[in-house]
Amino acid sequence: MASKFYAIVIGAGTGTGSAAARRFAKSYPVVLMARSPASYQDAVDGINASGGKAVGVSADASDPASLGVAFARIRDELLPGHRLAAAVYNVGANFKRAPFLETKVEDFDWSIGGNARGFFLFAQQTIPLLLESVDASPPYPPTLIATGATASMRGGAHCAGFAAGMVARRSIAQSLAREFGPKGVHVAHAVIDGVIDLPRTKEYNVNGGAEDGKLDPDAIAESYWHLHTQHRSAFTQELDLRPYVEKF
Amino acid sequence: MASKFYAIVIGAGTGTGSAAARRFAKSYPVVLMARSPASYQDAVDGINASGGKAVGVSADASDPASLGVAFARIRDELLPGHRLAAAVYNVGANFKRAPFLETKVEDFDWSIGGNARGFFLFAQQTIPLLLESVDASPPYPPTLIATGATASMRGGAHCAGFAAGMVARRSIAQSLAREFGPKGVHVAHAVIDGVIDLPRTKEYNVNGGAEDGKLDPDAIAESYWHLHTQHRSAFTQELDLRPYVEKF
Amino acid sequence: MASKFYAIVIGAGTGTGSAAARRFAKSYPVVLMARSPASYQDAVDGINASGGKAVGVSADASDPASLGVAFARIRDELLPGHRLAAAVYNVGANFKRAPFLETKVEDFDWSIGGNARGFFLFAQQTIPLLLESVDASPPYPPTLIATGATASMRGGAHCAGFAAGMVARRSIAQSLAREFGPKGVHVAHAVIDGVIDLPRTKEYNVNGGAEDGKLDPDAIAESYWHLHTQHRSAFTQELDLRPYVEKF
Amino acid sequence: MASKFYAIVIGAGTGTGSAAARRFAKSYPVVLMARSPASYQDAVDGINASGGKAVGVSADASDPASLGVAFARIRDELLPGHRLAAAVYNVGANFKRAPFLETKVEDFDWSIGGNARGFFLFAQQTIPLLLESVDASPPYPPTLIATGATASMRGGAHCAGFAAGMVARRSIAQSLAREFGPKGVHVAHAVIDGVIDLPRTKEYNVNGGAEDGKLDPDAIAESYWHLHTQHRSAFTQELDLRPYVEKF
Repeated sequence: MASKFYAIVIGAGTGTGSAAARRFAKSYPVVLMARSPASYQDAVDGINASGGKAVGVSADASDPASLGVAFARIRDELLPGHRLAAAVYNVGANFKRAPFLETKVEDFDWSIGGNARGFFLFAQQTIPLLLESVDASPPYPPTLIATGATASMRGGAHCAGFAAGMVARRSIAQSLAREFGPKGVHVAHAVIDGVIDLPRTKEYNVNGGAEDGKLDPDAIAESYWHLHTQHRSAFTQELDLRPYVEKF
Repeated sequence: MASKFYAIVIGAGTGTGSAAARRFAKSYPVVLMARSPASYQDAVDGINASGGKAVGVSADASDPASLGVAFARIRDELLPGHRLAAAVYNVGANFKRAPFLETKVEDFDWSIGGNARGFFLFAQQTIPLLLESVDASPPYPPTLIATGATASMRGGAHCAGFAAGMVARRSIAQSLAREFGPKGVHVAHAVIDGVIDLPRTKEYNVNGGAEDGKLDPDAIAESYWHLHTQHRSAFTQELDLRPYVEKF
Repeated sequence: MASKFYAIVIGAGTGTGSAAARRFAKSYPVVLMARSPASYQDAVDGINASGGKAVGVSADASDPASLGVAFARIRDELLPGHRLAAAVYNVGANFKRAPFLETKVEDFDWSIGGNARGFFLFAQQTIPLLLESVDASPPYPPTLIATGATASMRGGAHCAGFAAGMVARRSIAQSLAREFGPKGVHVAHAVIDGVIDLPRTKEYNVNGGAEDGKLDPDAIAESYWHLHTQHRSAFTQELDLRPYVEKF
Repeated sequence: MASKFYAIVIGAGTGTGSAAARRFAKSYPVVLMARSPASYQDAVDGINASGGKAVGVSADASDPASLGVAFARIRDELLPGHRLAAAVYNVGANFKRAPFLETKVEDFDWSIGGNARGFFLFAQQTIPLLLESVDASPPYPPTLIATGATASMRGGAHCAGFAAGMVARRSIAQSLAREFGPKGVHVAHAVIDGVIDLPRTKEYNVNGGAEDGKLDPDAIAESYWHLHTQHRSAFTQELDLRPYVEKF
């Protein structure tokens, strides 16, 4: 019998996270993970209502014990007998900009915790599962995708804490790609360079208010799906995504 | 009546070029361009035989007059009334590695001519056509894709001529993306970081002879097609493509 | 009366740290800081014996309270009335390479703690002091230099923890340079790309055992001094330093 | 008898070129090279008047024959018996910004010619001379320095021609560093990221008119001299130089 596969998205409560879950739900049952049901429940319900299969699991990415419990639940209760096809790390922490001397070390710790340490821990849970899937005839190479941002590429002024976490996340993705690519696991990093079109960014006036001047989460998700479906002879490790009108 | 669109691939005689032509031919008539019919005729015939529509045109990318004639023929004879949906620059020149002091200035000129100047000239022909397509209800944002290589990212030892042309090509793609993105034209650059699986590379022993250790041209073409179909709110300017076993 | 200035090096117990201290001691009293006197005492004694002025202070870079006490001691006891001319962050933590799945989260935390968080905290102590020096007629623009490594530029295989900390350090240096450069403080990052010539690396066979195939700490220190003395119209934010025989 | 050494600066008629010549003239006789005496004569006279030794030679960097004649004159007439200690490539061509579709291929060729091909040719003349100096007990490792610009790092909008030449120059410097570093020749690239303070930029209002908001050519030259004097165990391949108030 063919193996059954699933996908998981952590940070599923955001626009990008729920869009990725919806996109991967066209092919797999999906697990939506976030700190609390309030973050993922609507997206879970939406997927189930439209013919997909989704389950939600609460976990704190920066807490190894919490993640361990959540993955055990997936294995034992929620999707027994399934193998992991794709995992998306989409947790975002501490975007706030502040002068360096007004930035508290707690803000730095918060950024590292959610943006880097959480990805490290999530990868420690998912990489072994993805490795197990390599030889189980998955439809596409098992894939781990991390969402990045402009701050993943450099430290800007008034951005020391956030950038530190995001560049660290990117470097972890590079380390993983170099170690696990040759073992058949595709690790990719997407640099989201712009404002995402969300209810909470509705009022942001970016790019002169141009139509499509903010990233559509479904468009991001489409590129994540493309990354997942790439042939192993032509893996992308990194791509950028930005609105056509964005300055860069 | 809806506009009719076409795609063009220059450097169509290579594995990547013909694969891109085949992929885009699933949706558009395609023009295959190369210096002589010997380079493109088989690919043209193959596409036509399998239900697509393809025409071949001879032109030398590094010669403005030759390019001008070719584009006039496309407009007036080959695909009158069509608009340009996508253009791929895939010309490669002077891959050969050599110690710097044994590299002739003619080798440098050859690399610049085919790898950078030709792209400059091809863009001067295609950008105006792509701009015209923006408002003509194209199925996807009009797109110009340039094929890059490892040497697009840095100058290696024994690679001064080739790298000079390839980094220049990449910078032209960046300049174009920044200028024409806001006008609705998607300009992207793909860094092909590995050996492509071709008849002439059959005997190359790369990546320990691993299965899928060379890039499948059709896999490259699939990512080019993804670039073309990206929503304008989430354009990729650059992605890398490499075999899962490639060191980087 | 002209202001009196001093320099400080944290991570002073290493080859690079003590060399930097010796170099800056040709022009300033220097504070050598490390977790314990065992790390800095020999270097302190050496500077004092050869006509310079040095003091040692114990502090743990990753502990805000410990750093606070140390800087208060410098101000109140060790160098009262002096202003800070230059500060060097040279703490290194967790170089060890390991497969990702054998890397503990404690190793990740250790790298972040010493390589990034410590620099964040050290900068929070030193930036206000350097800002105060800007208008006090310092001999050269007040300067903060961070020591980087190959892993500051990218995440390699088996290097996820160390690289995460080092790329984060680099991004903090970039953020600081962008925020405080315009206020007259020079923040620079030096990428040490190779093995440093130290007692503990004596037996490492690098670069085929070539003469000068490891970085001389005094040569590194000479470039740090150059960074410090740059005119404010021509600040370097980043330079690399590697042995002539190093592959890159 | 100890060897006698000299330095050469091409593009000597500019602020950076003449400043570099003055700086290196403190230690070596210097050759100032430019297309015509009008460009270098004042700088030559100034150096000779202030106790240094300078000679001027006319040559066109983009013309191999012209360069060949010039280097033969240096060897046979101007500085017979001398060896080359340091060479600086400081030619700049085609800074002008223009929309891509108004940029002529001649502008592209002009940029490539002066910014990249000229450096290629200059390196073919100087690298053999620098290699000969390696074993001749030079005071510092023989050095080739290329002047770069913001456009060396990326292609900006309205900058396709200039950037193509400058990124190509940078990649040539990288190729040379990787090939000739291990043979004892130091090849470095300096990214000048800002406006240089020159008579012709006097009226430019940059960085809000801030004092020292433009790069002082003598400050640039001081960093070039530092590059030249670096110990071979700690070569810098690239550094950036920008005014403290410059945004980046």
